Amino acid sequence: MFFASDNSGPAHPAILDAMTRANDGYAMPYGADPIMDEVRAAIREIFEAPEAAVYLVATGTAANSLALATLCQPFETVFCSPVAHIHEDECNAPEFFTGGAKLTLVGDGDRMSAAALRRAIEAEETRGVHGPQRGPVSITQVTERGTVYGREEIAGLCEVAHGYGLPVHLDGARFANALETLGCSPAEMTWKAGVDVVSFGGTKNGCVGVEAVILFDPAKAREFELRRKRGAHLFSKHRYLSAQMQAYLADDLWRENAARANRNCARLAEGLRAIDGVTFQHDPQANMIFCAFPRAAHLRLHAAGALYYVWSGNLEGDDPEEMLGARLVCDWSIATQEIDRFIDLVRG
Amino acid sequence: MFFASDNSGPAHPAILDAMTRANDGYAMPYGADPIMDEVRAAIREIFEAPEAAVYLVATGTAANSLALATLCQPFETVFCSPVAHIHEDECNAPEFFTGGAKLTLVGDGDRMSAAALRRAIEAEETRGVHGPQRGPVSITQVTERGTVYGREEIAGLCEVAHGYGLPVHLDGARFANALETLGCSPAEMTWKAGVDVVSFGGTKNGCVGVEAVILFDPAKAREFELRRKRGAHLFSKHRYLSAQMQAYLADDLWRENAARANRNCARLAEGLRAIDGVTFQHDPQANMIFCAFPRAAHLRLHAAGALYYVWSGNLEGDDPEEMLGARLVCDWSIATQEIDRFIDLVRG
Amino acid sequence: MFFASDNSGPAHPAILDAMTRANDGYAMPYGADPIMDEVRAAIREIFEAPEAAVYLVATGTAANSLALATLCQPFETVFCSPVAHIHEDECNAPEFFTGGAKLTLVGDGDRMSAAALRRAIEAEETRGVHGPQRGPVSITQVTERGTVYGREEIAGLCEVAHGYGLPVHLDGARFANALETLGCSPAEMTWKAGVDVVSFGGTKNGCVGVEAVILFDPAKAREFELRRKRGAHLFSKHRYLSAQMQAYLADDLWRENAARANRNCARLAEGLRAIDGVTFQHDPQANMIFCAFPRAAHLRLHAAGALYYVWSGNLEGDDPEEMLGARLVCDWSIATQEIDRFIDLVRG
Amino acid sequence: MFFASDNSGPAHPAILDAMTRANDGYAMPYGADPIMDEVRAAIREIFEAPEAAVYLVATGTAANSLALATLCQPFETVFCSPVAHIHEDECNAPEFFTGGAKLTLVGDGDRMSAAALRRAIEAEETRGVHGPQRGPVSITQVTERGTVYGREEIAGLCEVAHGYGLPVHLDGARFANALETLGCSPAEMTWKAGVDVVSFGGTKNGCVGVEAVILFDPAKAREFELRRKRGAHLFSKHRYLSAQMQAYLADDLWRENAARANRNCARLAEGLRAIDGVTFQHDPQANMIFCAFPRAAHLRLHAAGALYYVWSGNLEGDDPEEMLGARLVCDWSIATQEIDRFIDLVRG
Repeated sequence: MFFASDNSGPAHPAILDAMTRANDGYAMPYGADPIMDEVRAAIREIFEAPEAAVYLVATGTAANSLALATLCQPFETVFCSPVAHIHEDECNAPEFFTGGAKLTLVGDGDRMSAAALRRAIEAEETRGVHGPQRGPVSITQVTERGTVYGREEIAGLCEVAHGYGLPVHLDGARFANALETLGCSPAEMTWKAGVDVVSFGGTKNGCVGVEAVILFDPAKAREFELRRKRGAHLFSKHRYLSAQMQAYLADDLWRENAARANRNCARLAEGLRAIDGVTFQHDPQANMIFCAFPRAAHLRLHAAGALYYVWSGNLEGDDPEEMLGARLVCDWSIATQEIDRFIDLVRG
Repeated sequence: MFFASDNSGPAHPAILDAMTRANDGYAMPYGADPIMDEVRAAIREIFEAPEAAVYLVATGTAANSLALATLCQPFETVFCSPVAHIHEDECNAPEFFTGGAKLTLVGDGDRMSAAALRRAIEAEETRGVHGPQRGPVSITQVTERGTVYGREEIAGLCEVAHGYGLPVHLDGARFANALETLGCSPAEMTWKAGVDVVSFGGTKNGCVGVEAVILFDPAKAREFELRRKRGAHLFSKHRYLSAQMQAYLADDLWRENAARANRNCARLAEGLRAIDGVTFQHDPQANMIFCAFPRAAHLRLHAAGALYYVWSGNLEGDDPEEMLGARLVCDWSIATQEIDRFIDLVRG
Repeated sequence: MFFASDNSGPAHPAILDAMTRANDGYAMPYGADPIMDEVRAAIREIFEAPEAAVYLVATGTAANSLALATLCQPFETVFCSPVAHIHEDECNAPEFFTGGAKLTLVGDGDRMSAAALRRAIEAEETRGVHGPQRGPVSITQVTERGTVYGREEIAGLCEVAHGYGLPVHLDGARFANALETLGCSPAEMTWKAGVDVVSFGGTKNGCVGVEAVILFDPAKAREFELRRKRGAHLFSKHRYLSAQMQAYLADDLWRENAARANRNCARLAEGLRAIDGVTFQHDPQANMIFCAFPRAAHLRLHAAGALYYVWSGNLEGDDPEEMLGARLVCDWSIATQEIDRFIDLVRG
Repeated sequence: MFFASDNSGPAHPAILDAMTRANDGYAMPYGADPIMDEVRAAIREIFEAPEAAVYLVATGTAANSLALATLCQPFETVFCSPVAHIHEDECNAPEFFTGGAKLTLVGDGDRMSAAALRRAIEAEETRGVHGPQRGPVSITQVTERGTVYGREEIAGLCEVAHGYGLPVHLDGARFANALETLGCSPAEMTWKAGVDVVSFGGTKNGCVGVEAVILFDPAKAREFELRRKRGAHLFSKHRYLSAQMQAYLADDLWRENAARANRNCARLAEGLRAIDGVTFQHDPQANMIFCAFPRAAHLRLHAAGALYYVWSGNLEGDDPEEMLGARLVCDWSIATQEIDRFIDLVRG
């Protein structure tokens, strides 16, 4: 019963098979391998973006930080949610890669609203050169609370940003899960809504470690390349990144994995909803659940070896009825029996 | 006939097998996987360094830059050879990760001498706060010209550095090849000679992409960990780095691969030496050869599809007798027939 | 009627006299001038801190940024008020000088409370290496809203910080004004309360441009010096900084200037309080007032040439009764007639 | 007898008078003071550059570092002489302000030649993204060895740089001294020869502490402004910088001071040349002399209280005939009697 994170499950076997197949003879290093040409073509086709620049890195933090550094001057500020991964979980990597830009936290929830974004942008740069200057907007989709921005929400945020001449980055560590939820095309969720640069995640959705950065406007492609190398994120044996991404995109594996993860999550949520006293902090719209249930249920789960984050409250405590929060993340690989067993243990 | 670089050949099959074997069920992320515990223990044993801190990253530039950033203040300068990888081939990554430290180039050859290092150190910091302050010394072993520092040479450099209170980093992207050449123990080539931190390369010697950073004094281990995360070099699905390194160390695969690469290089060098008019710029002591031969021979090789760097001179030109330089790198996977065919083509 | 800022008034004539007196013959550069020796001794005596390291820079942002960079690692976060000058008015200078540290905003008011600070500290570093690490606490005294921390408040914040092993910086751009308010000794407002490093302002209180940075523990003095030089904040003709600070400290000029500024402010506040409909957003405890009065009064002031910031609302508007906020800053040089004239114009 | 540096003499009285005159009433802060408008107009007129952007800072290192940071990406390298102030005397400030750019040292003398510059530029960027990218060229005029580039030399360097699309910065800490030597116009020594950005020094030539940065193409003016603020180099009480620069430019004070310094240097050089055994390492073309004379002469000078740098060799030593190098810098304020006395003491 592993619900701790979608970065702890196995890679899909097709990914490792592809890496093994790629392990044949010599290949040009540093992204000049022929598989990368195919990956680039595939992403351009999937995103209906024939001019897009496409690069691979191995971690989501690298994708986000390099993308933001390419979009942001060091005297600017990035607008993002207070729970954004770039703010809470990257140990100042965005500040590092941008050369010291600031992050301005918009609103107090999982999602930024267009109105809150506008207020935050307005509040900056009222001080001439004294305050940070307005910089890119970064949207996390799926959000860090398991919710999903609608297409109109994204379009609304992009409209605000572009109204001030600011570019928009989308942190799509769980891009595929969001796409499944929305049922729209990759283009509709990104450049057609106004997004300029995407971190397109593979690692959390069945890969070993690969993320694509997609710049719909290739004008800054060279700068991105140089920042990638300077950041030590250019792989010499690049073919193994290419092979992962190729297999991920082939036969819609990326869509299937995400669909399975979301279905797993829906089954888990449904089961929990049916239990008296389980409450949900956020609507589980993709593959993550934030809910609360009594300590006694947590203790049963822990005794049975379930792994997940106790998100609020403290497992140590006397009152068996006290409600403690849980974060439950589903990936593609979780068996339905495990889900049902988890539900049973919560029910008690 | 692939002699362009040891980053272009395939990974050893055992490495991909290990990654595939590791792809089973859930594993704690971010280096908390149990394979990493075994890797750490193995490296400590191999280096006879039970207290050493051991970390994995995926690129050599990351290993070097993070190691130097941990050893160096931004107002200091790193002493290295003018042909060091950290100076010529990392697109200012050391400057980036250190927050703007300088690199002071020592001497004008492939190797620093203790005397030249002493002169360079003496020349800095004669200006109080005005010049850069003295920082770490970085030794590349195997050097970027295919030569190998002797143990006494390393010890001599470390003695000079330590005499000024400066730490020593060893860029061991080709650590195993050097060790084969010297025939000594890993401890003898590193901490017993005075080296404080090692970039222990796997990628160029048969791995997919993994390097260990070994800090013999663990006092700065936590800082290294934080810099690794901040640099976006901490892998969530870390087990695939661990699995590579485990397989690399198991059954002396790392030693065998390096021995094969060095033997390949020796065979190639021997064949070339026997050809009239081939000259060597550096003594090929590990797995790289810098030599020159006539344009006509280069053209024969290119026609036959041989891949390598024309290191000096220009392939385009009229005189078939003009000597053009070549860099020839051997990895573990090169077949002896390929080597012999290459030699035959040079001979004409 | 100049109430826009205490950085717009003239320097006290004694400051320029001292600079002119210092302009005699040769003097050792870069802080080795004999006047600096006297300044160092004077500050150590005034602060009862015989071991303190003392440095001069020319801007408040330099003082704060260099102090924080000396106290803070790039993977850490600085705890400060959301209205702190370091957050709102330094165009990412703290992020720049620290190499990319973050600022964590504590509470939502002008002053941090010990409880809010503790909560903010507790909230960080619950994520291991993933989030920013806990770094220094920075207190602004006088706050950016014209209020003053009591000695016990400072001691309370320092106690919390030190409980987590975190150092405390005090941004004393208006140090002297706060001291006048509290009526305590410099030592009592700083190191006796637990403050580790002080930015001791001169510029806003009658100097041309000079700030001292005082490190009560000299262990990091050399690092500060090197960061000052690297930041281009070491003056070659340092004697003119020294002369300013010497004159500022001599005969209690710094105390007198601050006392006058605070008295000016008190007179202005008293006058405004007596007017029906004037409201105060913050208690004016030093030399700044945040208050609101009707648009009609603002228009009268503007017509008469008064200079100050309309802090909230918009001067353009139809309703003469609408309340608009004003920020009114007094420096030492403001004549009482100007204050009274300002009050009369508000009264109408 | 003060020949240690032109940063150790007094400011010209007219500078301090101007600061005192400026100390009257209120003035808009941060460069919005009316004196700055006059300074901007004056510099534009003097440089025949009506569109130029003009900014003031207080230190030469700030002028250089901010100028280079505005011209240079962090993944690029700056081409400069190995004895350039930006390389040897700014404690990594250029690396800091550029976010980690490298400095590539051109040639091995005081001046770069066009041929050496071309070779250095050609040698970079032969490695694609792996090496640093080509960045700005920085010329020091007067050089750090007291020599002066001719107009054609500057034009030649600019032509090479522009041929590769690289901008040119001129470090004019001793701009006026060079201009006196060349006898040309400021425009001829700068933009007419191809220079894009100038650090126009005041501090070493009679000011208290002020340098102008002149960007002939104002396209990057806003970026410069933001970098200045972020670097903590924007003065709130800016009028005192403006007043210095205004007085410096008024009535050709800057030209007169430089002419006097150069005449002082010429007199000293002439006197020394007439002494048997005095040798010159560089031709003293402005206000600095690098020469050698016997230890005995040095000891006489030291006994008489002369201040200057013993540039090579060691004053402690037995042989009174041993030649020791001296760096002798003249500023505008040195009395001819002091010069003659120095010469007499060397002569013995």
